[in-house]
Amino acid sequence: MSQLAEQTTEKVKDDLWWMPKGRQLMKGNHAVCAGAIRAGCTAYFGYPITPQNEAIEYMSDALLDVPNGIFIQGESEVASVNMVMGAAAAGRRAMTSSSSPGISLKQEGISYIAGMEIPCLVMNVVRAGPGLGNIAPHQGDYFQATRGGGHGDYRMICLAPNSVQEMAYHAYLGFELAFKYRNPSMVLTDGVIGQMMEPVDLDQVPMVFPEKPEWAVGIKHSPRPNNLLNSINLDPEVMAEYHKKLIGKYNEIRRNEVRYDEYMCDDAEILAVAYGSVSRFVTGAVRELREKGVKIGIFRPITVWPFPYEALAKRAAQMKALTVFELSWGQLIEDVALALYGAPKPVHFFARHGGMVFTPAEIAEDLLKVVKDPQTGDSLWRPN
Amino acid sequence: MSQLAEQTTEKVKDDLWWMPKGRQLMKGNHAVCAGAIRAGCTAYFGYPITPQNEAIEYMSDALLDVPNGIFIQGESEVASVNMVMGAAAAGRRAMTSSSSPGISLKQEGISYIAGMEIPCLVMNVVRAGPGLGNIAPHQGDYFQATRGGGHGDYRMICLAPNSVQEMAYHAYLGFELAFKYRNPSMVLTDGVIGQMMEPVDLDQVPMVFPEKPEWAVGIKHSPRPNNLLNSINLDPEVMAEYHKKLIGKYNEIRRNEVRYDEYMCDDAEILAVAYGSVSRFVTGAVRELREKGVKIGIFRPITVWPFPYEALAKRAAQMKALTVFELSWGQLIEDVALALYGAPKPVHFFARHGGMVFTPAEIAEDLLKVVKDPQTGDSLWRPN
Amino acid sequence: MSQLAEQTTEKVKDDLWWMPKGRQLMKGNHAVCAGAIRAGCTAYFGYPITPQNEAIEYMSDALLDVPNGIFIQGESEVASVNMVMGAAAAGRRAMTSSSSPGISLKQEGISYIAGMEIPCLVMNVVRAGPGLGNIAPHQGDYFQATRGGGHGDYRMICLAPNSVQEMAYHAYLGFELAFKYRNPSMVLTDGVIGQMMEPVDLDQVPMVFPEKPEWAVGIKHSPRPNNLLNSINLDPEVMAEYHKKLIGKYNEIRRNEVRYDEYMCDDAEILAVAYGSVSRFVTGAVRELREKGVKIGIFRPITVWPFPYEALAKRAAQMKALTVFELSWGQLIEDVALALYGAPKPVHFFARHGGMVFTPAEIAEDLLKVVKDPQTGDSLWRPN
Amino acid sequence: MSQLAEQTTEKVKDDLWWMPKGRQLMKGNHAVCAGAIRAGCTAYFGYPITPQNEAIEYMSDALLDVPNGIFIQGESEVASVNMVMGAAAAGRRAMTSSSSPGISLKQEGISYIAGMEIPCLVMNVVRAGPGLGNIAPHQGDYFQATRGGGHGDYRMICLAPNSVQEMAYHAYLGFELAFKYRNPSMVLTDGVIGQMMEPVDLDQVPMVFPEKPEWAVGIKHSPRPNNLLNSINLDPEVMAEYHKKLIGKYNEIRRNEVRYDEYMCDDAEILAVAYGSVSRFVTGAVRELREKGVKIGIFRPITVWPFPYEALAKRAAQMKALTVFELSWGQLIEDVALALYGAPKPVHFFARHGGMVFTPAEIAEDLLKVVKDPQTGDSLWRPN
Repeated sequence: MSQLAEQTTEKVKDDLWWMPKGRQLMKGNHAVCAGAIRAGCTAYFGYPITPQNEAIEYMSDALLDVPNGIFIQGESEVASVNMVMGAAAAGRRAMTSSSSPGISLKQEGISYIAGMEIPCLVMNVVRAGPGLGNIAPHQGDYFQATRGGGHGDYRMICLAPNSVQEMAYHAYLGFELAFKYRNPSMVLTDGVIGQMMEPVDLDQVPMVFPEKPEWAVGIKHSPRPNNLLNSINLDPEVMAEYHKKLIGKYNEIRRNEVRYDEYMCDDAEILAVAYGSVSRFVTGAVRELREKGVKIGIFRPITVWPFPYEALAKRAAQMKALTVFELSWGQLIEDVALALYGAPKPVHFFARHGGMVFTPAEIAEDLLKVVKDPQTGDSLWRPN
Repeated sequence: MSQLAEQTTEKVKDDLWWMPKGRQLMKGNHAVCAGAIRAGCTAYFGYPITPQNEAIEYMSDALLDVPNGIFIQGESEVASVNMVMGAAAAGRRAMTSSSSPGISLKQEGISYIAGMEIPCLVMNVVRAGPGLGNIAPHQGDYFQATRGGGHGDYRMICLAPNSVQEMAYHAYLGFELAFKYRNPSMVLTDGVIGQMMEPVDLDQVPMVFPEKPEWAVGIKHSPRPNNLLNSINLDPEVMAEYHKKLIGKYNEIRRNEVRYDEYMCDDAEILAVAYGSVSRFVTGAVRELREKGVKIGIFRPITVWPFPYEALAKRAAQMKALTVFELSWGQLIEDVALALYGAPKPVHFFARHGGMVFTPAEIAEDLLKVVKDPQTGDSLWRPN
Repeated sequence: MSQLAEQTTEKVKDDLWWMPKGRQLMKGNHAVCAGAIRAGCTAYFGYPITPQNEAIEYMSDALLDVPNGIFIQGESEVASVNMVMGAAAAGRRAMTSSSSPGISLKQEGISYIAGMEIPCLVMNVVRAGPGLGNIAPHQGDYFQATRGGGHGDYRMICLAPNSVQEMAYHAYLGFELAFKYRNPSMVLTDGVIGQMMEPVDLDQVPMVFPEKPEWAVGIKHSPRPNNLLNSINLDPEVMAEYHKKLIGKYNEIRRNEVRYDEYMCDDAEILAVAYGSVSRFVTGAVRELREKGVKIGIFRPITVWPFPYEALAKRAAQMKALTVFELSWGQLIEDVALALYGAPKPVHFFARHGGMVFTPAEIAEDLLKVVKDPQTGDSLWRPN
Repeated sequence: MSQLAEQTTEKVKDDLWWMPKGRQLMKGNHAVCAGAIRAGCTAYFGYPITPQNEAIEYMSDALLDVPNGIFIQGESEVASVNMVMGAAAAGRRAMTSSSSPGISLKQEGISYIAGMEIPCLVMNVVRAGPGLGNIAPHQGDYFQATRGGGHGDYRMICLAPNSVQEMAYHAYLGFELAFKYRNPSMVLTDGVIGQMMEPVDLDQVPMVFPEKPEWAVGIKHSPRPNNLLNSINLDPEVMAEYHKKLIGKYNEIRRNEVRYDEYMCDDAEILAVAYGSVSRFVTGAVRELREKGVKIGIFRPITVWPFPYEALAKRAAQMKALTVFELSWGQLIEDVALALYGAPKPVHFFARHGGMVFTPAEIAEDLLKVVKDPQTGDSLWRPN
C-alpha cells in the first residue's frame, strides 16, 4: 500500500479535490476534523459517544476520499487508542476523539503513547461527569487533561479552543506540536464549541503533506534500519536517563509553546480567567462591564498545558483580585493559584455545575461583587 | 466453594478460623489483603501485574476460605473494575488492586463508581511510567490518585501507608471511610512497601462483619424496595443538585478525614515533606541530621486526598524553607505549593527518577544544602 | 444470593420450596429449565437469542432461589460455554441454551467439553438458517447436533423432545446421561416445542441432589487428590489410547442409550420417520390416514444420537417404502438412508423451508402419494 | 484507497514483481497462500494456531507487497472470520486459515457468509481433536467441513488436496468456485500436506486480477446502486423462496463441480477410498500390491463436498468390496456408505487415531485381509 502511495504522491498533489477548503459554516466537531485532514491526518480510530459523534461521523466519510485514508470504528475505546498508537508508530498522522468516559478508557493508551514518544491527536469533547453523567458542556476533565489521567509523569500538549475556527486551527497546531516534540496533543473542548456552528475559513489552516518521519517503525523493503518504539526500560538507571530526557523535552515545551490571550487587560484592576467555551461568556460580560467603566480584563489560557504561569503572574501583579470562571468543581483554579505562588492575590472562584452554563449577565453580576469587595467574600478561594 | 461454606458455617461462627490474625512477618501486598479481609472484604476482582501480584495471589487463596468469598481474575482490568462496581453495588466490601498501567485502565470504572456513590477499595502499587515503564518503586501516579484520572470532578479518599502494618490498617480504614461516605478509597503505595516484609500485628486491625447497607441494590424476595444506583442525570438542573450534594460530601471529608504525621517539628526551621515509602528514607535522614543538631522536621501526609493543606500551612509558618522529596517529576510538590498559597515560603524540590530511590545519605546531603541556603539554589521550585 | 442461601438453608432441607413442582401449564422453554433444576442443575450461563429467551429468563429468576444457584449472562456465547465448562469441571450440573447462531459460536467450547469428558447440558432451540435467518421453527442443525459441529470426532448425546412434558423430562435425562458417561448432552428442539404451552406434570421428573463427582476438579482443603481435566495429549500414541477409550465409551452409549418411539407400526406398509415437532404433525396425519384404512405407521427417533439404526432397519424390513418429513434441506434423511444400508428400501423425502411448517393435511397428501406409488416418484431420495 | 487503486491498476499490471511465481520448493501451507495470491487474494485475516502458522506468517509478509493488500491478525478467530465477511462483502478475494479449534470458532461466521452468499476461502489444517488435542495430522473435521458445522443447511465447497502442488491449485480453484457460486470454499487438509515441502510450479496456477463484483457492497462515489448483503428473512414465505434458490444453487454445484481421481481401477476387484494425505499412503500400498498382482484400485474424492456419490457408486459396482482408510473415528465412511445406498457392497473401515498415521505397509496388510475375505471380518462396517 505504501509503495503505491509513493508512486502516486505526485499525482495526488496535483489534484486535491478531497481536501477540506474554503469558507464554510461548520460545527466545531466537523471543523476539528477538517483541520486535521488539512494538517495531514490520514488515520482516525474511535468509538461513538455523544457529544462528539459529529467528529467520528465526519471522519468515517471524509477519510474514504483522503488518499491512503484509514477509518476504523474500533471494538472499544481501548482498542481505538491502541490503533492510534500503531498507526502513529508507523508515521501516520493519526487521531482519535471521544467524550469524557471514553477518554478515561484511553488513559492507559495515552500513557503508553507518551512513554513511547509517539505523536498523535486526541480530542475530548468534555461532558458532565463523573460516571455516565450527562452530555451537557462541562470542564471537569481539566486535571485529567493537564496532569495526566494515565499513570506516570507524562504530559500532553493541551489546546483549549474557544471558537469553531480555532477548533480547525488547533487540530493543525496539535499535530504540528505533536510531531515537533513527539508527544500526544489534546484538543480539550466541550459541547458548546463542538456542536455550535460558526463560519470557518479553512484556507487559514495550513496544509501539510507529511513525510514519513525518521523515527517511525519501518516496513518491508525499507532502506532504513528498523526502528523500535517502546516505553519499557527495566533498568532503573537507564529509565532515569530516559526520564531526564523527557523532563528536558517537557521543559522545552514549557519554554516555547505557552499560548494565551489577553483582552482589555492594560488598565484592568480585576482579572477574569477562563478557558474554552467559558471564555466566550466571560468576554461578553467583560465587554458589558467595560461599557459601564469597570476596569476589568480577561486572561484566557489557550494552552492549558503548558499553562501560562509566568504570563498570568505578571499580569496578576497589577490586579486587586482575580476571578476564575469554570464549569467544574474547581480545577483551573489550582493552576491560577499556582501561578500566584510567591506573590498571592485574592482569587474568587465561580462555578456552574451539572452541565449548566454561565450567562454573561450572571458573570457580570459575579464580577461586580468582586469589584466592590476584592479582598473578601464567599467566593474567595482557599486550597482544599 | 459453596460446599466448603456449608461445611464450615458452624465452625466459622465459633472460631473464625479463616480470619487473618496474630503477629506475622508479612509482605505489604499480603498485609493489605489480610487487613481487607479483617475489614469484611468478601470480594476481590483483579488482573495480574507486577509489582502487586502478591495481592491477587493472596486473595485467590484466602477468599476460598472466607464465607461467601468471591475471587475472580477478570478477563481484563476494565472487566475487573466493573465487577467491583457490581459486587459493591450489591453491598459487598469489594476490592481490586493493580499497578500503574492497570490502574489507568480502571479510570472509567472508578469514575462511574464515584458517580454512583458506591464504596470500594482500590490499591495501586505504583511502578515507574509512563507506558510500560518498569516495575521499580515510583510515585508518578499521585495526580491520577488525588485529582481523578478519570473524567469528572470526583475524588477518591487516598491513603498512603509507609509501613506494612499501615498497609493492613489502611485497608481497614479505606473500607470504613469508603462506606461512611459511599465513595471509592485508594491505598496508594509502591513496591518498596508492597514487597518488603515487616512484622505486622493483624489483631490491631479491627474486624468488621458488615451488614448489607440500606442503599445496596436489592435481590429477589427482599422486603426492601428496589434501590437504583447510577450516575446518569440527563437534566442539567437535576445534575447540578447532585453535584452540589457531592461537593458537600467532599467538603465533609475534607473537614473530617485529613490525616498526617509530624516528627521532630516543634523547633524545626526546615521542614521535609514526603509520603509513603519516601517518608521512611527521609525520616532516616532527619534523625541523622538531628543528631548533628540540625533543626529539621518531617511532615508526612497520610491522606494525600484530602490533603492536609491547613495543617501543613500552619506548620510551615515557622519554617525558613520547605523541602519536598518525591519519586516523580513533581506532583506532591504542587499540593505543597497550594498549601502555601497566601503565605509563601521557599520550597525546594528533590526527585529521583526511573525507579531509582533515595538513600538517607543523599537526602541528608540535600537537606544540608537547604539548611545552608534556604532562600535560593537550584532546587528552588517555581510553578511550571 | 448468598444471604438468601443462608437464610433458607434450613427451610430448603425441610420443604424444597424453591423446587419446581406439580402440574402446571408451561412453555417448553420454561419446562426444560424446570426439569433441569429438578435434575440438580445449579448453574446456568448463556446469552440471549430468540426463540430461546424464555429459558435464560426463567433461569435468571429461578436460580436466585436454588441454594448455591449461579446464573450469569456471559459477555458472549463463547464466554458462556466456557463458563459452563468451568462450572461443570468443578462438578456442578451446569447448563447453557441458545438458538442456532449462538450454538455455532459454542462449537469450540463443546468440543473441548467433550474432549475433557465433562458432563453438561446444552439446549438448542433451532431457528431457520443459515446466517441470521429467522426465528421460525427449523431442523437445519441436525448435522451439527449429531455429527459434531465442532472439530474432532466427539459426539453429543442428543435428545429430541416432541412435547413440553418431554422437554422437562429430557433435561433430567440429558443430565443423567451426561453424568453417567461424562459427556455433553443436547436437547434439540425448535420454537414449536419451545414456545408452545402445554400441561406438564413436573413431579414425574425425578429430583436429583447430586454429590460432587469423584472426577471433579478439587478445591482447597479437599481431602481428595487434585484432579486434572484437559483434552491435550501431545504424544500421538497417548492420544490414540485416549481415542480408543472414547470410542469405547461412545460404542457403549450406542448399545445402551438408543431411544425411539413407534406408533401404529405393527401392520404398516409405509413408515413415516420424523423427530421433534414434526413428529407431532406427522402423527396427526397418520391417525387421519389410519381412520381411512391406510396401513401406515410412524417411527420417531427420541435420541438422534445415538441414532436408532438397528431398530429402524428392523422395522423398515416390513415396509414398501419409507418417508422422511423434515424441516430442513435433508439431514435426518441421511441417517435413515444409513439405517437402510445393506437392505435398501425406497425412501421419500418431504421438506419445508424457511420456517414454514407442515400441516397434517399436507403430510397426509404426501403420504398418500407414496402409498399409491411406493417405488418411484419425484420425492424419491438419492444420495447427493 | 480504492480510488488510488483504480488510478494505478494499469501500472500494477505492468510490473508483477510481487506475484509468487516459478518453480519452488515449498511447504503446503506456503503454497496455498502463494496460490491464493495468484488467484487474486488481497485480504487475509486470521489468528495463529499450529499446524497452520506457516500460512498466516506467509500472508503477513506477502500481502505487504500485494497492491492494496490487507493483512490483519484479528483479536480472535471470531473477529477474523467476520473481517473476512466484511472484506469479501466489499468484493475482495479474502481468506482465512486455521486449524481445528480455530475453525470451530469460525462456524457462526461461516454460516453467515454462506447465508449472505459471500464468496471466500477458508483453509483448515486439521489436527487431532476433540478439544485441544494435539497438532498431529487428523481427518476428524470431515463432518464439520462437509455437513456444515455451523447452523442451517448451508454447504461449503470443500477441496481436499493431496500434494503441495494441489494446495496451490486448490486455493485458486477454491476462489474461482467461491466466486462462481457466491459461496464459501474450504481447503481441507492436515499437517502432512501443510507442513511437508515439495516442488511446486506456481506458474501452473492461473493468475486472476478480479474486478469488483456487481453484487459487492458499494462505496462512496460509486455509480452503482447500493447493494445489501444479509442473511435475514423474517417472513418464512420469503425465506422459503430464498431457501429454494440456495438449494437450486447447491444442486447445480453438485451437478457441475464434483471432482475425484481414480487410479488402477479398471480391472480392480477391491477399491480403496481415501482423501487428502491418506490417499498418498494408500496409493503407495496399492502400487505395492499391484506389483504382487493384486487387483486393487484407489478412488480419491477431490471434492469432499460435493461428494462424488454417483462416480463412486458406478465404480463400486464392479468391486467385491470397498475399503475406507481414514484418520478419524469414521466420517468419510458414511459418505461411502451413502454412495452405496441402493446397491450395497461390503465396506471395510480402517482408521488411525490420535495423530498416528498409516504406513503403506500397514495399509497393504489391511487390504490383503479384505482381498482374502471381502464379505466378512472385523473391519466390516455397519451404521452406528
